[in-house]
Amino acid sequence: MSGSFELSALTQRLVLDQPFVLESGISLAGVELAYRTWGTLSPSRDNVIIVCHALTGSADADAWWTPLFGAGRVLDPTQDFIICSNVLGSCYGSTGPTSLAEDGNHWGARFPAITVRDQVGVQIRLADALGVRSIRFVIGGSMGGFHALEWALLDPQRVEAVVSIASSGRHSPWSLAWSKAQRLALAADPLFDSGNYTLAAPPRAGLAAARAIAMISYRSAHSLEHRFGRQSGREKFAQHAADPDDFAVNGWLRHHGRALVERFDANSYLRLLGALDSHDLGRGRGSYEAAIRSIRQPVLVGSIHSDALYVPREQHELLALLPHGELLGIDSHEGHDGFLINAVDYEPQIRRFIQTLPRQPRLKPKVEPVVQTIRPLRYAW
Amino acid sequence: MSGSFELSALTQRLVLDQPFVLESGISLAGVELAYRTWGTLSPSRDNVIIVCHALTGSADADAWWTPLFGAGRVLDPTQDFIICSNVLGSCYGSTGPTSLAEDGNHWGARFPAITVRDQVGVQIRLADALGVRSIRFVIGGSMGGFHALEWALLDPQRVEAVVSIASSGRHSPWSLAWSKAQRLALAADPLFDSGNYTLAAPPRAGLAAARAIAMISYRSAHSLEHRFGRQSGREKFAQHAADPDDFAVNGWLRHHGRALVERFDANSYLRLLGALDSHDLGRGRGSYEAAIRSIRQPVLVGSIHSDALYVPREQHELLALLPHGELLGIDSHEGHDGFLINAVDYEPQIRRFIQTLPRQPRLKPKVEPVVQTIRPLRYAW
Repeated sequence: MSGSFELSALTQRLVLDQPFVLESGISLAGVELAYRTWGTLSPSRDNVIIVCHALTGSADADAWWTPLFGAGRVLDPTQDFIICSNVLGSCYGSTGPTSLAEDGNHWGARFPAITVRDQVGVQIRLADALGVRSIRFVIGGSMGGFHALEWALLDPQRVEAVVSIASSGRHSPWSLAWSKAQRLALAADPLFDSGNYTLAAPPRAGLAAARAIAMISYRSAHSLEHRFGRQSGREKFAQHAADPDDFAVNGWLRHHGRALVERFDANSYLRLLGALDSHDLGRGRGSYEAAIRSIRQPVLVGSIHSDALYVPREQHELLALLPHGELLGIDSHEGHDGFLINAVDYEPQIRRFIQTLPRQPRLKPKVEPVVQTIRPLRYAW
Repeated sequence: MSGSFELSALTQRLVLDQPFVLESGISLAGVELAYRTWGTLSPSRDNVIIVCHALTGSADADAWWTPLFGAGRVLDPTQDFIICSNVLGSCYGSTGPTSLAEDGNHWGARFPAITVRDQVGVQIRLADALGVRSIRFVIGGSMGGFHALEWALLDPQRVEAVVSIASSGRHSPWSLAWSKAQRLALAADPLFDSGNYTLAAPPRAGLAAARAIAMISYRSAHSLEHRFGRQSGREKFAQHAADPDDFAVNGWLRHHGRALVERFDANSYLRLLGALDSHDLGRGRGSYEAAIRSIRQPVLVGSIHSDALYVPREQHELLALLPHGELLGIDSHEGHDGFLINAVDYEPQIRRFIQTLPRQPRLKPKVEPVVQTIRPLRYAW
């Protein structure tokens, strides 16, 4: 069970009857996965779409990706059976640090490190449990884009296509540095105490600081300029010399810091940062290039030209290696968050991509999945 | 006097005989300014060059801007009298939080907020004390570029030209956000205690986290990619699943965090961030545009195309408004730190600019300085 973090009343929950073995080799018993569905699974069980959420997201995809939902849209409950699950390690209903361990206490800092592949592995168990025979496409942005790409490699039998937006093939040193700065800020808060805090006394200051760092990486100089301007800030500053925190943009950072403290757990946040850092399509698959070249599905790669976190060169690197890659250029000044802010603008382009896909599942060669997710990987680390 | 932070044996010190009144109206008695000089002041006292340092810099310009120094170079001690002073509020010999207040204790958190104009105001007092009649040019990068631009407006009588590199006309919401994230990280460390720590027990974790944030802003995705690559990081990660901190780039961030803790004071760092945030050439001067249009001197504006902190659009904004602005394009992938890393590459371009300047000081119109720095500003805040 999860902590006190708010869940939609429509949230369903899968409990795995078998222990789930992480890439690290650690075995987790009684793993739970919170998920939402929209629409109806067809008799042939092949009208499925998997939606993957970003770092602090939840299974409520209709709430955070609203412009993609609706009749005739990319996510059409009148035609498709849409599934979105909260990732392993999060605090929105799936097993994670806020869940109770077998000793009846919260996992907290004891919760093991997890990877993007672990998270997708559990999502694949959900697809199994729901009897999914074929998946029209897996779609996600940011961290969700990592999951979408891993789906293509971990379940090549069922995944027909992928839409990965504002994402990359592996976490770059630049992205790793953003994660590290957030970990340092969190660790600077003594209430964090290496993760050994109680849910009643969370490391508010440290988590808020980490979120403020992340918020910068999600935007751009232009977007903040456009949103807050300078003059208003200057006027405020002119009135309060000693408190530069009166700048409008600083109020915005404080707000997002405090808001995350209310809605997210610090240990979960840390585990999800670790999952981001684990992302590398090539790890254990010979080489990065070989792994991406082995992706047989059509992949729509969304790239936001102002993305300061997963910079455009990373999506173009993917497109140069994907056998069936297609660019979705998103001309936004909002930075990384354009994948949410500009959804209404790029939704038609995704729809066009989907319309080029075969209506019926193509005949698939009987190949083994690249990775066996049911038992520990031979090259597990 | 300053704390225990290392100073060059060649450092000289000016002690102001009159109290210095800050823009805030607060009066500081016995202000000291640590400075270095190179070369000899000419009998006509007009062969002067002022060098302004960046955020955590010192008066030892020959150490951090070595490629610019030497016979025939931009900073030529055989021809010119070069002055670099440590800014007010820093901890490298000038009056700041680590100095002793009148009560015999360190200023610490009691040290008042200061502005870029306050810092230049004290530097102007140094020029007065040294009998400088004319200044060939004022040069600086990053925060030093802010100072160089303010010099043009605060001392139009003496300043002949300006070289401002990787800088801007005012701190943008984007730059303000970077400062705020660092303040939040520092404040998350209880040892900081609102600045009421002792120099013996500084807020190491908070300052290190702040520095890690700053280091990201000083580089670029490309520079970190080039320096650390991904594969090596991946190998390390593959060996140590649970510790993503083994990535090479994270070691680099830790190193810079720890290094700053050893060489800088947290309250000084906070005062200098506040000075950055105060930067706005237009404040109290009618309008931003009017202030920049009133700069009569030739200004060489250095712009690094990969600068993620003071982004190129900010330098182009300056150039669009400066009556005598000239672009120094720096084609570097290093990001903001290119102003130091690539100095050897762009030094010849600055030399060419300087050679276009009149050898003798031009006849200057008898205009009053835009701002009176000797007494509090009428529009003080």
